[in-house]
Amino acid sequence: MTPPIVFYDIPSTLPNKAWSPNTWKTRYALNYKGVPYTTVWVEYPDIEPLCRDIGATPTSTKADGRPHYTLPIIHDPSTGLVVSDSTKIAAYLDATYSDTPRLIPVGTMGLQRAFEAAAQSLLAPVTQYGHPAANAKLNPTSEAYIRRTREAMWRKTLEELTPKGAEDVVQWAKVKEGFGKMDEWIGASGEGSAYIMGDAPCYADMWIAGYVVWIKLILPDKWEDMKLWHGGRWATLLQNLEKYETVM
Amino acid sequence: MTPPIVFYDIPSTLPNKAWSPNTWKTRYALNYKGVPYTTVWVEYPDIEPLCRDIGATPTSTKADGRPHYTLPIIHDPSTGLVVSDSTKIAAYLDATYSDTPRLIPVGTMGLQRAFEAAAQSLLAPVTQYGHPAANAKLNPTSEAYIRRTREAMWRKTLEELTPKGAEDVVQWAKVKEGFGKMDEWIGASGEGSAYIMGDAPCYADMWIAGYVVWIKLILPDKWEDMKLWHGGRWATLLQNLEKYETVM
Repeated sequence: MTPPIVFYDIPSTLPNKAWSPNTWKTRYALNYKGVPYTTVWVEYPDIEPLCRDIGATPTSTKADGRPHYTLPIIHDPSTGLVVSDSTKIAAYLDATYSDTPRLIPVGTMGLQRAFEAAAQSLLAPVTQYGHPAANAKLNPTSEAYIRRTREAMWRKTLEELTPKGAEDVVQWAKVKEGFGKMDEWIGASGEGSAYIMGDAPCYADMWIAGYVVWIKLILPDKWEDMKLWHGGRWATLLQNLEKYETVM
Repeated sequence: MTPPIVFYDIPSTLPNKAWSPNTWKTRYALNYKGVPYTTVWVEYPDIEPLCRDIGATPTSTKADGRPHYTLPIIHDPSTGLVVSDSTKIAAYLDATYSDTPRLIPVGTMGLQRAFEAAAQSLLAPVTQYGHPAANAKLNPTSEAYIRRTREAMWRKTLEELTPKGAEDVVQWAKVKEGFGKMDEWIGASGEGSAYIMGDAPCYADMWIAGYVVWIKLILPDKWEDMKLWHGGRWATLLQNLEKYETVM
């Protein structure tokens, strides 16, 4: 029997450890397809050494020109391949495990990529809430690493990033407006559609769910508000996908 | 025999009159589906009175709260319906003429909407070139109307809008970068894909082509540069869709 896929994820102090919106996309994908995998937890300072060790492709380039390595990454012993980036992982799983439900229905990769670009831009306002709250849930070694690197990059403390008072009202309304657009897109797919392509979830739904579960886990007070938005769309999305949240 | 669909478009002084990127989307759609139609040309100042007369739905609300009416609009005598907005027209044509090739393949409406949001944002830098150049091609009554309303809104002359010198270099590079993203999305659909969903054009391709043909017609000097971008992707797109450019 081929050993299971190794799924590299970042741990937190939360009960199930999983928290990252980007790695959630891959966890949903693996569980939805029912492909056997095992999670290996990697603290932030260990990501780059690991990636160099296993020959993972960087997902972008840093401002100073050095490669930037990010999780999720999977290593599939059945093919020997290492794949970085949640979209590329989704495409790889569809191609390699073709008898499992598709994440990216045939012909939709270009549109899923366009969806990602649009959704990323809509969700930009949520990061100022998410980064500080997520950092507070990391283990000490990752917490210190993210604080050092991000505070140098943004030239402010993580705590300063979080909108407060009147600014919170403005910024949180922007977050709601962004989710409102995504609610419209899902609604445009048909009356009562649970997912953006209709009856079955696709990669774009897992992309959204990755962010929604992240908000639920790290910003529980904000989630109390958000779960009532858009006719309960986001609470229902998590209920529908809850069976694919198992941490293996 | 039912009379053909009436397609309301905005004329210009160009040989075939057609120029607007938004109405091109609908012209491509009608010709691709082979649904009989006839074009009725409407100058800008006549759009709102026409829309009120035929009971067309406004596509947005102006800053002062009044309804904003835009073309394309179609009136289909076979159903008696009037439909505004190129995306809604595409969906209407798919639903009503279900034995013709689909513009929005089943299940993709939400993703096509997300594509539009992403593409609109990428193409924002091209409008500062396109608005002045397009205005110079309009008939006097529309030219004067657009100049008056847009110059009041932007608080600068149309001529001041066009980037010049060093600013032109910066802004035109942004236009290229935007098309570069769309080139990636189309490329992501498969090696050698002509269209974003693969072998057949869909609404998103006609959306892009509407802007490309607009640039070709009103900015011929810029088109000389652009037609070489991304392996000739945009010149090829127009060649492939040329048979759907007929003005009926």
